[in-house]
Amino acid sequence: MITLSIPKDSGFGLANLPYGVYSVGGAAPRVGTRVGDTVVDLALVLAAEDPGAEALFATDSLATFMSTGPAKWAQVRETLQRVLAGEVPKEALHPVASVRMHLPCEFADYVDFYASEHHASNLGRLFRPDNPDPLMPNWKHLPVGYHGRSSTIVESGVDIVRPSGQRKGPGDEEPTFGPSTRLDIEAEMGFIVGVGNEMGSRISVDDASTHLFGAVIFNDWSARDIQAWEYVPLGPNLGKSFASSVSPWVVPMAALADAKVSTPTQDPTPLPYLHMDDPWTLDVDLEVEWNGQVVSRPPFRTMYWSPAQMLAHTTVNGARTRTGDIFASGTISGPDKEQRGAFIELTWGGKEPIQVGGEERTFLQDGDTITIRATAPGANGERISFGEVTATILPTPPLRP
Amino acid sequence: MITLSIPKDSGFGLANLPYGVYSVGGAAPRVGTRVGDTVVDLALVLAAEDPGAEALFATDSLATFMSTGPAKWAQVRETLQRVLAGEVPKEALHPVASVRMHLPCEFADYVDFYASEHHASNLGRLFRPDNPDPLMPNWKHLPVGYHGRSSTIVESGVDIVRPSGQRKGPGDEEPTFGPSTRLDIEAEMGFIVGVGNEMGSRISVDDASTHLFGAVIFNDWSARDIQAWEYVPLGPNLGKSFASSVSPWVVPMAALADAKVSTPTQDPTPLPYLHMDDPWTLDVDLEVEWNGQVVSRPPFRTMYWSPAQMLAHTTVNGARTRTGDIFASGTISGPDKEQRGAFIELTWGGKEPIQVGGEERTFLQDGDTITIRATAPGANGERISFGEVTATILPTPPLRP
Repeated sequence: MITLSIPKDSGFGLANLPYGVYSVGGAAPRVGTRVGDTVVDLALVLAAEDPGAEALFATDSLATFMSTGPAKWAQVRETLQRVLAGEVPKEALHPVASVRMHLPCEFADYVDFYASEHHASNLGRLFRPDNPDPLMPNWKHLPVGYHGRSSTIVESGVDIVRPSGQRKGPGDEEPTFGPSTRLDIEAEMGFIVGVGNEMGSRISVDDASTHLFGAVIFNDWSARDIQAWEYVPLGPNLGKSFASSVSPWVVPMAALADAKVSTPTQDPTPLPYLHMDDPWTLDVDLEVEWNGQVVSRPPFRTMYWSPAQMLAHTTVNGARTRTGDIFASGTISGPDKEQRGAFIELTWGGKEPIQVGGEERTFLQDGDTITIRATAPGANGERISFGEVTATILPTPPLRP
Repeated sequence: MITLSIPKDSGFGLANLPYGVYSVGGAAPRVGTRVGDTVVDLALVLAAEDPGAEALFATDSLATFMSTGPAKWAQVRETLQRVLAGEVPKEALHPVASVRMHLPCEFADYVDFYASEHHASNLGRLFRPDNPDPLMPNWKHLPVGYHGRSSTIVESGVDIVRPSGQRKGPGDEEPTFGPSTRLDIEAEMGFIVGVGNEMGSRISVDDASTHLFGAVIFNDWSARDIQAWEYVPLGPNLGKSFASSVSPWVVPMAALADAKVSTPTQDPTPLPYLHMDDPWTLDVDLEVEWNGQVVSRPPFRTMYWSPAQMLAHTTVNGARTRTGDIFASGTISGPDKEQRGAFIELTWGGKEPIQVGGEERTFLQDGDTITIRATAPGANGERISFGEVTATILPTPPLRP
C-alpha cells in the first residue's frame, strides 16, 4: 500500500477525479481516474468499499457507471475522495505515461450546437457577407444545432486524415473533387449524457444536472471548402463527418460546481422552456496550440447558450436521449481576436494569416499538430484540468478501395 | 414436420425472404423470416444445416448476421430457399398475427438524403418562393443529406406523439411554443449497412452492393412549422428528431435483383466518384394510406440519386460506416401530384386541401393513422412486399417532468 503523490497545481487533484478508459500493454481496457501523474484503476481501488465496483469499472466503457445515475455518481466520488487520500494498493496504480487512453464510451447520438454569439456572428459575416445582420433571426431564440456523425468521434492522439470532397470556389464554373484546402479546427466543449429520458418526455433546464455526467474537450474538425458548397439548405454533412476528436478524461459535473458562472444576459428573454432561474454556465478556459504555439484562448463563459439549455432544447420535442449521447457547444469564440476558436475566424477566411513557427499560416497543412487544453476553477482553490485533445494531420492517401 | 403454405401473390414468397426480429408472448426476441402469413424462426429452421445458426439468429438483432458479409448472406438465403421449399419443423412456425415485431437492430448513424428532384423542387418553391431556381446550385452535383437522430427511430405500430416546439409564422412578431400545427409525413425508403468501412477508406459506387444488406420503408415524420423556423443555417433538427418509423421486415438486396432499373438521366454528369457504369436504382412502388384511404403512390424509380451514390457520397471523405447504419432516401415524390410523398407537397403548403374520409385535410390531426406499403418486382414473376409501416398520431400530453 502506498500514499499517492499529488503534485501541487497538477490540475488532477482530489477536487477533479475525472473518469476515463485506459489500458496497459495488451491488457483489456478498464475504467480509471487520474490523480497527478498516476492513473488509478477503479475496480481495484474500490474493491474493498463497493461489491459492485468490478461490474461498474472492470469494463472498457463508462456506460454502465454513467447509467447508474446521480446518486451513485455522488457516492463513488465521495468514496474515491476518501480512499485516495489514504493508502492505496500499488497494483491499482500506473504512471500516466505508461497507459493508452481510449474513448470513454461508444457514443450514441451526437448533436453539435452553435452557441457562441461571437462565433456565429463571425461566420455570418464570412459566409453571408450581404446580410445586414450576421445572426439569423432564430439565433437568439433557440440554441441552433444539428446532428453529427457518432462513428467518427475518435480519441485524442488518433491522426486525422485530410478529407477529400466536392468544393466550388466563387470563381469556379463547376465543382471539383480533391483534398480539402481549407481544413480547420473548432475548439469546443462536449457534454456527455449519463442518464437519458424516455420518448415523449423532456429534460427541463433545471433537471439537466441530474442527466449530465461530465464534460470533455471537443475538436470538431471542419473542411470549410466542402462545407461551404454542401451546406445549403440541410446543413453541414461531409465538411464535418470525417472526424471529431475528444479528450479522454471525462470531468464529472460534480467537479465543476465551483466553475459555475452566469451566462451572458439573454435578450430577448428565452421562451419558458429555456428559462433558467439560475442561468449558469461554466468558467472554462481553453487554449489552442498549433505546432506547439498557443494561438488562441477561447473562454467558455462567453457562450450565449448554456449546456442545460442545449439539453432542454434537444428533448423539448419529446426526443429521447441515451446513456452515451454527446452534445458539443459549437466553436467557442470570445469577443477578442485571440479568443477565436476556429482558424476561419482567426485568419478572417484566410485573408489575414497569423504567424505560426515563424511562417504565415491560414488553414491546416499536413503534419500540423493541434492540441487543445482546458482548465476550470475547482474546490479548495484547486484548478481542474480537462487534460488535452491532440491530433496530427496526415496527407490524403490514394483513396481505397 | 409440415410444408409451408405460400399464398399466391402474398408478396412474401421464396423470392423475398426478408429478415426481421420477432417475439411471441413474453419470450425473448429472435430473428425470423416471413413466408406468406407465417413467421419462420431462423435458428430453428437452420439448426440442422448450419452449426452457427443459433449464434446468428437466436438473438434480438440482425446485427450479428449482417456483419458476416455478402458471402454468408448469399449462403443463408440459398439454404433458406431450399429448406423452406420442403418440410419444416412445426415449432419454427408462428402465424404472423401472433407475433410482435421489433426494430431489426439498434441503428448506428442515420443520414437522411433529399434525393427526389420533384420533392426538392416542390419544397424549394414552397420554402423559398423568391428564388428563380427551386433547386440549390449544389443539388445536381451531390446527393444532399444530413445526419438525423438514431435514438428516435421506432418500429411500425409505435404511436407518434405530436411534438412541441418553437415556430414563428410569417405574421408573428415573436416565436411561440406549442404543439406542432403542421405535422407531416415523408414517405421514404431506408437502406441498412451490413458491413461498414474503416475510417480513411471509402465505399465506391460499384462496391456498394457488398456493403448494403437490405431495405425498409421509412416514414420521416416532420413538423413543418418547427422545421421552417429552425433550419437556417444548420439544417433540420427538432422538426425531425422526435420520431421516424421503419417497417420491420428488411428485404435483402439480393431479393431486389429483378427490381433494378436505371436512374433518370443525370445531367450534368456527376463527378467520377459518383459515376456509375450501370446507374441502377430500384423499381419500388409505394402507397400512402391516410386513415384507410390511399392518397399517394410515390415511385422510387423516379429518384434522381441512387442508393449506391448515397453510400459512396457518405464515405468519400473517409468517414466510416458501421453495421446497423441506416440512410434514408428523403421524400419520394414523382412528377404527378398524386405521387407526392409528403402532405406539404400534396396540399401545396396547406393551401390546397385534399379529401380524406369526406373531409378537407391538410396536415395530420390527432388520431390519424398513416400506413405506407411498398412492393417491387421479384424473381420468377413474384411480387416482393416490404410489408408496411404504420403509426397513429397521439395528442401532445402535458409535458413531463
